[in-house]
Amino acid sequence: MKRKLYDLAAADPSFRFSPYCWRIKLALAHKNLSYDTIPWRFTDKEAIAFSGQDKVPVLLDGKTTVSDSQKIAEYLESTYPNEASLFGDAQAQAITMLVKNWSEASLQPALTKILLPAIFKRLAPKDQDYFRATREAAHGISIEAMEAAQESYFPAVQAALEPLRRTLGGQDFIAGIAPAYADHIVFGALQWASLTTPVALWGADDVIARWMSAVLEAYDLN
Amino acid sequence: MKRKLYDLAAADPSFRFSPYCWRIKLALAHKNLSYDTIPWRFTDKEAIAFSGQDKVPVLLDGKTTVSDSQKIAEYLESTYPNEASLFGDAQAQAITMLVKNWSEASLQPALTKILLPAIFKRLAPKDQDYFRATREAAHGISIEAMEAAQESYFPAVQAALEPLRRTLGGQDFIAGIAPAYADHIVFGALQWASLTTPVALWGADDVIARWMSAVLEAYDLN
Repeated sequence: MKRKLYDLAAADPSFRFSPYCWRIKLALAHKNLSYDTIPWRFTDKEAIAFSGQDKVPVLLDGKTTVSDSQKIAEYLESTYPNEASLFGDAQAQAITMLVKNWSEASLQPALTKILLPAIFKRLAPKDQDYFRATREAAHGISIEAMEAAQESYFPAVQAALEPLRRTLGGQDFIAGIAPAYADHIVFGALQWASLTTPVALWGADDVIARWMSAVLEAYDLN
Repeated sequence: MKRKLYDLAAADPSFRFSPYCWRIKLALAHKNLSYDTIPWRFTDKEAIAFSGQDKVPVLLDGKTTVSDSQKIAEYLESTYPNEASLFGDAQAQAITMLVKNWSEASLQPALTKILLPAIFKRLAPKDQDYFRATREAAHGISIEAMEAAQESYFPAVQAALEPLRRTLGGQDFIAGIAPAYADHIVFGALQWASLTTPVALWGADDVIARWMSAVLEAYDLN
């Protein structure tokens, strides 16, 4: 049975924008592992109830089910040790956790209020009520108010991108001469942004755009 | 000739608070290299003119002079390869650059407006005019106005600390089971804060306090 990845989708089932699912699609490519994706919507909780939780990514690999992007990455690393390493040695893997937590606690929160209104419009109708209720409760502001305030969120995004810009100014990838899971994490966040918002948060000649293309190219995904 | 490190000092010459000098003091301890420090003030530009620039840390190691904390760390790593590695392998070293840039572009800027008024009061009188002029120009606000607005800066500090708190919630050190240069960088930023401001930015039972003690203990600096 071919590997299957439940991958968050919009109304258009081919529109896949989850930062956490992107991490795993790159990690699978890095490990040279083929897979099919199954489009999944926020409200399809029953479809993944077998995984014991209600979020994607969920990976089915033979008889094994793994959920949570970090657990999936660790599963791939330990299950396929002869393929290219996602993390490098134990020290590189430990430091990658700070990259993960920076992406999740600083970079992604800076992006989210810009992206949510754009994502809302693209969702399947059955997902929109759920998305509005959960996101408005989390942020204490309506989707429409977020959209109206959009420009006020730009400076925080540029500030949050600064550590990445400085790093990519001196080296090709976060992990050095080739991408690894540290790159996959941050790429996921910025792919989530670039796919969903029409706002140009970086220019085509920005070091970030160059790096995003290089990551995709490294896995023949361009 | 014993190694010498020019180390930023306040009016009290034993008060050493520079985040960049702390990185190097920990790096030297990590490499098991002895050294003497030379207290240096912001306006002692002539005293380090021989280094070709005007900031500390400056390391004198035999006939070699190295300035800039990153260059000093790389110099120590290549010059003393048989001592414990500061960076780990090339991949860990590359990812450490994102930690450096996060510390310098996110964490330290979040801390700085809280710390500057406290640092100003501790400086040697001859440094105070220089410090006021350069810092007020950089931030566009007077030292006194920073101090009056102090509490308004607290939320940004807590947000900036969140990636570190999450990371240290799951592992002993940023670099994993033992501290390395990634830890030295972030320790330097937080030591700069904890030495200078009376504000408790984290509690004694916070994972950050536990980690800072463990870093010092790893080098017998407690």
